[in-house]
Amino acid sequence: MTFSALSRLECPKCGLTHDPDQVIGLCPCGSPLLARYDVPAVKLTKDELAARPPDLWRYHELLPVRAPENVVTLGEGMTPLLPLPRYGREIGVDRLLMKDEGLIPTGTFKARGAAVGVSRAYEVGVRRIAMPTNGNAGSAWAAYAARAGLEALVAMPVAAPEICRREVKVVGARLHLVDGLIGDAAAYVREQEGYFDVSTLKEPYRIEGKKTMGLEIAEQLGWRLPDVIVYPTGGGVGIIGIWKALLELRELGWIDGPLPRLVAVQSTGCAPIVQAYEQGLPESEPWPDAQTVAFGITVPRALGDFLVLRAIADTGGTAVAVGDETILAEQRRLAELEGAFVCPEGAATFAAARRLRESGWIHAGDQVVALNTGLGLKYPQTVPL
Amino acid sequence: MTFSALSRLECPKCGLTHDPDQVIGLCPCGSPLLARYDVPAVKLTKDELAARPPDLWRYHELLPVRAPENVVTLGEGMTPLLPLPRYGREIGVDRLLMKDEGLIPTGTFKARGAAVGVSRAYEVGVRRIAMPTNGNAGSAWAAYAARAGLEALVAMPVAAPEICRREVKVVGARLHLVDGLIGDAAAYVREQEGYFDVSTLKEPYRIEGKKTMGLEIAEQLGWRLPDVIVYPTGGGVGIIGIWKALLELRELGWIDGPLPRLVAVQSTGCAPIVQAYEQGLPESEPWPDAQTVAFGITVPRALGDFLVLRAIADTGGTAVAVGDETILAEQRRLAELEGAFVCPEGAATFAAARRLRESGWIHAGDQVVALNTGLGLKYPQTVPL
Repeated sequence: MTFSALSRLECPKCGLTHDPDQVIGLCPCGSPLLARYDVPAVKLTKDELAARPPDLWRYHELLPVRAPENVVTLGEGMTPLLPLPRYGREIGVDRLLMKDEGLIPTGTFKARGAAVGVSRAYEVGVRRIAMPTNGNAGSAWAAYAARAGLEALVAMPVAAPEICRREVKVVGARLHLVDGLIGDAAAYVREQEGYFDVSTLKEPYRIEGKKTMGLEIAEQLGWRLPDVIVYPTGGGVGIIGIWKALLELRELGWIDGPLPRLVAVQSTGCAPIVQAYEQGLPESEPWPDAQTVAFGITVPRALGDFLVLRAIADTGGTAVAVGDETILAEQRRLAELEGAFVCPEGAATFAAARRLRESGWIHAGDQVVALNTGLGLKYPQTVPL
Repeated sequence: MTFSALSRLECPKCGLTHDPDQVIGLCPCGSPLLARYDVPAVKLTKDELAARPPDLWRYHELLPVRAPENVVTLGEGMTPLLPLPRYGREIGVDRLLMKDEGLIPTGTFKARGAAVGVSRAYEVGVRRIAMPTNGNAGSAWAAYAARAGLEALVAMPVAAPEICRREVKVVGARLHLVDGLIGDAAAYVREQEGYFDVSTLKEPYRIEGKKTMGLEIAEQLGWRLPDVIVYPTGGGVGIIGIWKALLELRELGWIDGPLPRLVAVQSTGCAPIVQAYEQGLPESEPWPDAQTVAFGITVPRALGDFLVLRAIADTGGTAVAVGDETILAEQRRLAELEGAFVCPEGAATFAAARRLRESGWIHAGDQVVALNTGLGLKYPQTVPL
């Protein structure tokens, strides 16, 4: 049995396929590439899986790293899936669960993409990486790069959370601050020579790490899917990854029936995907003057917007924008009722769940998984001193 | 099979035993009480254990909560045990592992004691708790109290990490700041009426939560013990808990041979236990003018000092004090070489490991587990911006 069933890279726009065992970023047509696996060759059983260590590498057959010795890990994955009975009762969703991505290295779900992305980059021969970030992805990729012995350059808006700057610097990565948004940081990265650009969806493997959230939700629920999954959406890799995971599990024959309705949550201060969804467009328009307390989802135009919109359409999902005041109020309420101090991006999913229940889009009996994408600890200024 | 094998509470000083199914704090003689179990009645097998969910409640037979419905959980436990090959090579300890207690609710190992302590307090009928804290224990107990629906009062030195104040407040606990050290906060708590005092070792179950670190280390190493375990020591509950866990596993027949040599690490700015150890005393003297960057271990006199000293003596361990500059330098070095951003208390254990290897106390072939007790993220000012 081989460690990974990775077979090829495929372009979801033009349909071309590419050899995965080379240093490659986007498809020549400009689209992100998606990893494809020889799923029928995966002979894993659910029992064998259950006996493996509780980290995301338990799913190695469906991950792109070919050799175990190339795995770069800080112990990421298998985060808790917690019932929220008191908060759920308040918003009228009795079967509400939180997938808590705060309990992961560097404190956000970005660690998943970084662990798999760095491991695979190292495996195909990359030794220097560069990326723009709203903060948390930079923290994560810098940490895993240090663990792998790779050189890293991280470009970040000056308005990004201060803690992320410290995280990038303490592990010895090079930090560049830009007076602008993530797009400006991306422009800086494009000008640098000698680095492999690991921007969101510009390399094919970050999404493979993030899809493990979907694999874990399915496994933790005993391979029965929830009715709804609510996800905060900036670059969109998390929600696309979850969708991809569920499709692969269906191909594997481990799940059946309808997929959960996927909900993309944005802030009213930066809601390009919600706008495109409401207008029935296949892609988004750049959002002017983007600004929100949920800094991680301040992405005016996501490279993978068309995939997010497809994921929503394919699953009968929706897209919702919530305001900053609502986000902060929900963060407090969840903390008071359940003891969980979530990040503002995570709080946005709870605000959306409450709203969708009020509108009737979420039914009283629905099992709903809301993703908290990171620690509230990384955003101390969002709560009172 | 009963959920918990808890049989009694026992005083390690005067030897009296007490009924555990009541609200009880210290032994009337003034000593902390220890939970004892009917270990021969535990029929669990290692294979059954391996199939349980990856949180600390997998060890419920050896935990004091009698009914599963009283378990208050935020998904704590089964934190990573990571090889540190590059850093280990640098300090000459090739078989160095880090148990990373950053990946746990509220970001420190204090969550273990709080999860079990709050659950058991709730079970015996407590509805209002109060405690002094250097910060992180307060954050943890406040969070679990909120999750359980208990009222909580937390008293904290003004110099405690700012983030801990926010954590206590966001979950709706009452916060009281004192212009002094943890002893002054304890004095304030003693004056409050109507609260159950859950100070370190003043209730018997916090240590039960913390002992799960020892259970996990043994399980993660396949029930073969390491040669040395290095632990940062303030109140001492962590190291006492690990010792207690190993003794219970021995009684269960799951481990044999000598116990790991336990190392208590303190800061030169507050080293009462190191001083007592060096002078061969059974208890410590209060440390004057205690001050260190590793704020969590600023405990001038620990109620359980005699138990820490016994744990060291019983296992052939030692006690080491390291300076603040060394702690901060080691924090940086570990981050650069392994991508792990640890708290200063955690960094102290690595400084101690390096020192003990230099002195020859740790041998080149020893397998050494160093505990990182929490997230560096909670101490942003310890690393450069």
